[in-house]
Amino acid sequence: MNGAHALIRTLVSCGVDVCFTNPGTSEMHFVAALDDVPEMRGVLGLFEGVVTGAADGYARVAGKPAATLLHLGPGLGNGWANLHNARRGHTPVVNVVGDHALPHKPLDAPLESDIEAIAGAVSGWVRTSGSSEDVAADAAEAVRAAMGPPGQVATLILPADVSWSEARGPAEPTAAPEVVAPDAGAVEALAEVLRGDEKAMVLVGGRVVGDEAGLVAATRVAEAAGATVMCETFPARMARGAGLPAMERLAYLAEFAQMQMDGVAHLVVVDTRAPVSFFAYPDKASVLTPDGCEVHELGGPGVDPVAALEALADALGAPAEVTRAEASRPAAPTGDLTAQTMAEALGHLLPEDAIVADEGNTGGLFVAGATAGCPRHDWLTLTGGSIGLGMPLATGAAVAAPDRKVVCLEADGSAMYTLQALWTQAREGLDVTTIILNNGSYAILNLELARVGAEDPGPTALSMLDISRPDLDFCALAQGMGVPAERATDAEGFTAALERALAVPGPALVEAVLPATL
Amino acid sequence: MNGAHALIRTLVSCGVDVCFTNPGTSEMHFVAALDDVPEMRGVLGLFEGVVTGAADGYARVAGKPAATLLHLGPGLGNGWANLHNARRGHTPVVNVVGDHALPHKPLDAPLESDIEAIAGAVSGWVRTSGSSEDVAADAAEAVRAAMGPPGQVATLILPADVSWSEARGPAEPTAAPEVVAPDAGAVEALAEVLRGDEKAMVLVGGRVVGDEAGLVAATRVAEAAGATVMCETFPARMARGAGLPAMERLAYLAEFAQMQMDGVAHLVVVDTRAPVSFFAYPDKASVLTPDGCEVHELGGPGVDPVAALEALADALGAPAEVTRAEASRPAAPTGDLTAQTMAEALGHLLPEDAIVADEGNTGGLFVAGATAGCPRHDWLTLTGGSIGLGMPLATGAAVAAPDRKVVCLEADGSAMYTLQALWTQAREGLDVTTIILNNGSYAILNLELARVGAEDPGPTALSMLDISRPDLDFCALAQGMGVPAERATDAEGFTAALERALAVPGPALVEAVLPATL
Repeated sequence: MNGAHALIRTLVSCGVDVCFTNPGTSEMHFVAALDDVPEMRGVLGLFEGVVTGAADGYARVAGKPAATLLHLGPGLGNGWANLHNARRGHTPVVNVVGDHALPHKPLDAPLESDIEAIAGAVSGWVRTSGSSEDVAADAAEAVRAAMGPPGQVATLILPADVSWSEARGPAEPTAAPEVVAPDAGAVEALAEVLRGDEKAMVLVGGRVVGDEAGLVAATRVAEAAGATVMCETFPARMARGAGLPAMERLAYLAEFAQMQMDGVAHLVVVDTRAPVSFFAYPDKASVLTPDGCEVHELGGPGVDPVAALEALADALGAPAEVTRAEASRPAAPTGDLTAQTMAEALGHLLPEDAIVADEGNTGGLFVAGATAGCPRHDWLTLTGGSIGLGMPLATGAAVAAPDRKVVCLEADGSAMYTLQALWTQAREGLDVTTIILNNGSYAILNLELARVGAEDPGPTALSMLDISRPDLDFCALAQGMGVPAERATDAEGFTAALERALAVPGPALVEAVLPATL
Repeated sequence: MNGAHALIRTLVSCGVDVCFTNPGTSEMHFVAALDDVPEMRGVLGLFEGVVTGAADGYARVAGKPAATLLHLGPGLGNGWANLHNARRGHTPVVNVVGDHALPHKPLDAPLESDIEAIAGAVSGWVRTSGSSEDVAADAAEAVRAAMGPPGQVATLILPADVSWSEARGPAEPTAAPEVVAPDAGAVEALAEVLRGDEKAMVLVGGRVVGDEAGLVAATRVAEAAGATVMCETFPARMARGAGLPAMERLAYLAEFAQMQMDGVAHLVVVDTRAPVSFFAYPDKASVLTPDGCEVHELGGPGVDPVAALEALADALGAPAEVTRAEASRPAAPTGDLTAQTMAEALGHLLPEDAIVADEGNTGGLFVAGATAGCPRHDWLTLTGGSIGLGMPLATGAAVAAPDRKVVCLEADGSAMYTLQALWTQAREGLDVTTIILNNGSYAILNLELARVGAEDPGPTALSMLDISRPDLDFCALAQGMGVPAERATDAEGFTAALERALAVPGPALVEAVLPATL
């Protein structure tokens, strides 16, 4: 048994049985070992940003990490942006980066680079495996490190000779850290604050919003305290829909977030952080909590945030039951195809138990409202702000949940970063319906150009935000990668095309032609 | 005048008047300033790997750097792989990476990351501009650092408030370092070695092979010394064709390179390094020079390598004239379309003064031979081994040389990393003919799988190298980005399609359907 075999068998014994790959020569022993460990599913991507984004989407849905297989520094570079999103979403990823054989490294061959430096900037744990005797134990530690909590990117750098040299055998899983009980005194002190008259908000994220128990616990606290409850702006995974407690998300635009928080004197944050502006703007605040607002963190290292919320709810004497969203769907829209009617069509049709991978950006502005009363579903967002995540995320989610429909809401500009995900969807027969929101523009930047104070922009500046010369034909692009596609230009046509696409038991794409401005 | 204006005006005054861009919110002041400095041409890419690869191709042809404009750590990550190629090719690049405003950085907003760490792994010079008062001088230094010699990636990190705050004005260009004369004693000592009877090889690269003077100087030395002369495996830019001294390139595969160097007792390296194996393999040598071979470096810091070769040639009493390649072209091929007949068609048609951006990989194996007697042209290669360079490289080359035809030889697997380059070609009307070598496979990895000793690979391993499920339709993909395309399946059809594509005064693509194996 060589190091690659020992590594893959260890991953499987630790529960990691999907590996998204884009290998090269230095990874050939890993690839060759896959046939000996049929429990490990290899899923090929044509670009590393697809690989890492898919690993993120997989873990958000499966609740456990996938592995990646990347080719040296450049492969990690290509996958870096979506690892950044995983880092910000606390998604567990076991990121395996092949490297030159250890004796080859000092020769500074053309593909040599400082992998640890670029890995360190995006990983919570980095290790270069130093020998085939150690690689199995290194892999077990990588899985444990990735799992956290909180989840993180754990990068294992795998020199080629560590793969090809003789190993002892697989390693046992590393034990998970113990769960710590919420501190009763801290919970009671916070309950005392919330019993007061000052305006309070409960801001939750991370594991709290991923399932019903967390949503209920947070809502119990808020209802008992007379506080508002809100979800962080970009949750990794949010359970929502009819029958679940409804929860608004904090707005992306700082001005709107400040309105949402207006007058809040006590902000309780649970598995998230007090909000800051996404970007800085001249003469605008970066810290979004109101002046004088006191921030209370509930939980802490090793504490299950949902258990902490339940303890707080009990301390407040909150009833077990909470207000839940009513079932409702918009009517099928008619007339022009706009961000609003596109959203209504989706709300009209979203299947029960769907997973929505949302990189709709400006074109997706009305989707949350239009789907709030749909049957239960999960919503995955752009956690780190690095565009090019949506389609890989949908790909990984579909690998994790083959029995669920995945809907990918994808802005045109963002789509063009990692469009190769469609090919993996076709190759694996993944049940993903992609909606391309084609407005021919980096529309968000038109908005931001004004917001940063660059008034009266000239034609050159505007041309840098215009992606309509030439127009992108997403149907041709999808068909070029084996995914059937159709284009819609009015609300009725879009609704019908979406219905047909959702009926396909595999990948399909609908291009929604939207106005250039909202 | 704000920092962004001062920066752009400084770049222009330093001769940097093209900026390949993929901006985001933190770069909006830079974008807004473009209208005030019409001498700076902004060229938009839909993905950062296109931006950085285009900057590389531009500089290889223009002989001076372009700027990039990238969006924080993720934008740099996406552009990292092609910056790696630029680093290995010693191409000057002024790499501008936007960042959060300085007071915003400690807040750890979602897009915050350690940009200096990832920039440092690929740049010879990195600086975060600390104030709008300094940014112009920083830009001048960045240009100087990028220019070298040798050329390198110079990364200037540009916080948003440095862009938007008031600046003093543009800075003057920084003076170039002095050129050092070749050391006469060292030249004479080396001449004495070459006058001996032991087998010698002159291995040249970098600036030596970029134009006629260097090729002539190297060939004079070799002919006078009775030595062989050879070009490094992956030169950034090689002048070649009828009327120039012909020069073989050192082979990529270690076994072949060792055959080429068999018995060489003295290796003279000029603006390149003694060769090492691209990858390590079990039980194979990584150092490719024969045992006991003495390596002599000619030149040194600040020395013009062509002047050093000329001094050595004079010391050897070499005549001014050398053997030059005869004009010849292959006949138009007939029959099956293979790597060989594809190469013959290209040799039959390659226009005079063309620039070839070569990422043909296995499918391009016979192209060098088939074009050796074509009219003079320049050849750009994959300097750092990070695939996904060819189409961006061609894009940048075409921006630098609007009056020359650019031919991009692109392997199917590599094409899928940075296919978005086609859109920039369409948008800018660039005169690029792309030939996609579609063999449905990562063919090089099938070869490497055997070479690393992974014998008798199973179906899962082989499936990781097979990109024919589903088949990629490159004509649809090109048309989706506004580039006309046609597919050819036999030699006559390919030759005719290539002739039509070359006649188009703008981008066109020909998909050559090749056998899965050579």
